[in-house]
Amino acid sequence: MKMKIGICGYGNLGRGIEAEINKNADMELAAIFTRRKPAASLVINSDTPVMHVDDIADWKHGHNQPRKIDILILCGGSAVDLPEQSPLMAGHFNIVDSFDTHAKIPAHKKSVHAAAAAAGNIAVISAGWDPGFFSLLRLYSGAILPSGTSGSFWGYGVSQGHSDAVRRIAGVTGAIQYSIPQEEAIEKARQGKAANLSPREKHKRLCYVATEPDADRVRIEKEIKEMPNYFADYDTDVVFISLDELTKNHSRFPHGGKVIHTGQTGDGNRQAIELSLKLDSNPEFTASFMLASARAACRMSREGLTGARTVFDIPPAYFSPLGDDEMVRLLL
Amino acid sequence: MKMKIGICGYGNLGRGIEAEINKNADMELAAIFTRRKPAASLVINSDTPVMHVDDIADWKHGHNQPRKIDILILCGGSAVDLPEQSPLMAGHFNIVDSFDTHAKIPAHKKSVHAAAAAAGNIAVISAGWDPGFFSLLRLYSGAILPSGTSGSFWGYGVSQGHSDAVRRIAGVTGAIQYSIPQEEAIEKARQGKAANLSPREKHKRLCYVATEPDADRVRIEKEIKEMPNYFADYDTDVVFISLDELTKNHSRFPHGGKVIHTGQTGDGNRQAIELSLKLDSNPEFTASFMLASARAACRMSREGLTGARTVFDIPPAYFSPLGDDEMVRLLL
Repeated sequence: MKMKIGICGYGNLGRGIEAEINKNADMELAAIFTRRKPAASLVINSDTPVMHVDDIADWKHGHNQPRKIDILILCGGSAVDLPEQSPLMAGHFNIVDSFDTHAKIPAHKKSVHAAAAAAGNIAVISAGWDPGFFSLLRLYSGAILPSGTSGSFWGYGVSQGHSDAVRRIAGVTGAIQYSIPQEEAIEKARQGKAANLSPREKHKRLCYVATEPDADRVRIEKEIKEMPNYFADYDTDVVFISLDELTKNHSRFPHGGKVIHTGQTGDGNRQAIELSLKLDSNPEFTASFMLASARAACRMSREGLTGARTVFDIPPAYFSPLGDDEMVRLLL
Repeated sequence: MKMKIGICGYGNLGRGIEAEINKNADMELAAIFTRRKPAASLVINSDTPVMHVDDIADWKHGHNQPRKIDILILCGGSAVDLPEQSPLMAGHFNIVDSFDTHAKIPAHKKSVHAAAAAAGNIAVISAGWDPGFFSLLRLYSGAILPSGTSGSFWGYGVSQGHSDAVRRIAGVTGAIQYSIPQEEAIEKARQGKAANLSPREKHKRLCYVATEPDADRVRIEKEIKEMPNYFADYDTDVVFISLDELTKNHSRFPHGGKVIHTGQTGDGNRQAIELSLKLDSNPEFTASFMLASARAACRMSREGLTGARTVFDIPPAYFSPLGDDEMVRLLL
C-alpha cells in the first residue's frame, strides 16, 4: 500500500514536493493544504484535493482507524510558520519539516517531541540538505576523524530561509538572498585550518529587495543587516530593485555548498573528506530529501515509534525504497 | 567505562587501529592478536598485551561475566582471512570487519549473522570507506534522487584488498596495486551519464609485483589478469620490479575516490551530489572508520542487539562519541 503524503504549505517547497512525489513509486499525494484560497493555487495534479489549512482536522484519522494521511510534509518557513505549525500538526499527524534555524533547533525539537509523543505520532524535523544531508556528513566525518576540523559552506545560491526572513519585513514586497562562500575560507578548510573561521570570513550575503513605493528603505536595510541568526554575523549587501526586475532576473533557485572535513592520522597523514552539492533547484532538492525522510517516518510510525527524530537517529536504510537484501547487493 | 578494543591481525590495518585508537577518548586497546610470533611484532604501545591468535579464546568472557574485549576488530584480508575468521570470531566476540569483496558481501553477511546471533554477539561487517562510507553516500543519494544515477570511482591509490590478492599468488614475494579512475568517466558521471559505464571504462589497474627469482612470471601475470572480482573485468597492467624497488618506492598507501550521483528534478533541473576522499593513508582511514563502527557496535551490544549489521542498519548517532543534545547543537 502506498504511503499517503499530505503537503501543508503551497509555496516553492510545497510545489517541489508535488513535482517530485511521482519519482517515488511507493508514495502518493493525498491532499494539499494551503492558507490561500484553494482555487487560486496552481495545481499540477488536477485530481489532488486542495483544501484550506483550516480544514486539515477533517483529515485526521479516528481512533484505531487507518491514517488518511500517513505523513504530512510541512512546507512553511522556519522564521514564523514552523515554530508554531510543527508542534501543532505533530499533534494530529506524523510530520516531516525542514526547520533550518540552526540555533533554535534544540528548542524546536523539544516542542515538537512533546506534541508528537503525546499524540502517538512521529516527527522528523530539520530534514533538508542543511540541516539534514550536510549534518549527516558532519556527523560521520567527525566520528571517523575525531581530531579533524569541519567547515560547511553554502552557495553561490539562494537560501529560502533567508529570503523568507527578508520578505517578512514590513514594507518588503519581494526579496531574494544569495549566500556566497569565500574561496579563501574553502581553501583553508581543505588544509584543515577551518576551525577558527568566523561566519563573516566564510560567507557573504547579498539581498535583492523590492519594497512598497513609500517604504523606509533605510529602516528595511537596517532590519535586514541586524537580524539575529540570519544576517547579523555576516557582511550583507542589500540592493533595492523593482519587483519586475526581481521576477525577471531572480526567479530561479540554484544553490549548492560543501562540507569539508580534514584530519590527520598516524604520522602526519592528511585525510580529507569533501561533500559537494550543485543544485539547479534548492526547493526541489529539499523536497526530495523530505520525501525520503517521509519514507523513514512512515516506517518508524509503523514500528510504533513516536516523538521527534532527526536524521541522526534514523538508520540510513529507512530512507531507501529498496529491501534489505537488494540494498546490500546493489549499494554496499 | 572505556570500550575495550581488541585487534585481530597485525598488518597495515591493525597498525592503523593501534595508531588511531587514542584519538577516541572513550576507547582503550585491550590486546593485539597476531598469527606471527608476538615477539617479532613491532608494537607502538609497549604495555598492550600481544598474544598469538591461537590464545584468543582466553579473552572470551564467561557466562554473565563482563566482556574482557568489548569489540574485536578484524584486520585480516577479504580474499582468504575474513570469510573464515569473521564467523569464527563472531562466535566468541562482538566484531567489526571491513570485508570488501563487494560481490560476496551477501554470503558473508549471512554466515557472520548466523554465528553472531547464535552466540548473542553483534557484528558490523564491511565497515571501511568502500564498502562503508561510500555505501552510505550511494544509499542516501539514491533515496534522495531516485531517478538519478550513481558512479563510484577509486584512486589514484593503493587498494589493500587487491594488493593482498596479488600477494597470495604462488611465487609472489611482494606486490602493490594502484586503482586509476578514468577522467572521461568521471565527467560522464557528473553529467548524469554514468549508468552504463563498464568497470573497464571507469578504472584501470596497475600492479607492481616482486617475485621469487625462479618464479614463472607469465603464469603470475595471467593469474592476476584473470582473477575474478578483482582484475578480470579491468584493463590491468602488471609491472615486475625488485623487492627493494617495491619497498623503496611503494611503501605508502595513498588512496581516494569519488561517489557522484546526478539526477533531475522538476522541469529539467540538474541536481548533483559528489563525495570526494583524498587520503594520505588508506589503512589509517579504514582503521578510523572501523573504530567509529566499533563504537556503534558497542552501543548496539549494550542494547542487547545481536547478529550482523551493515552501516545501512545503524543510526548515524551511534558512530559519534557525542551525546544526543550535543550532537544536535553542534552538528545538525
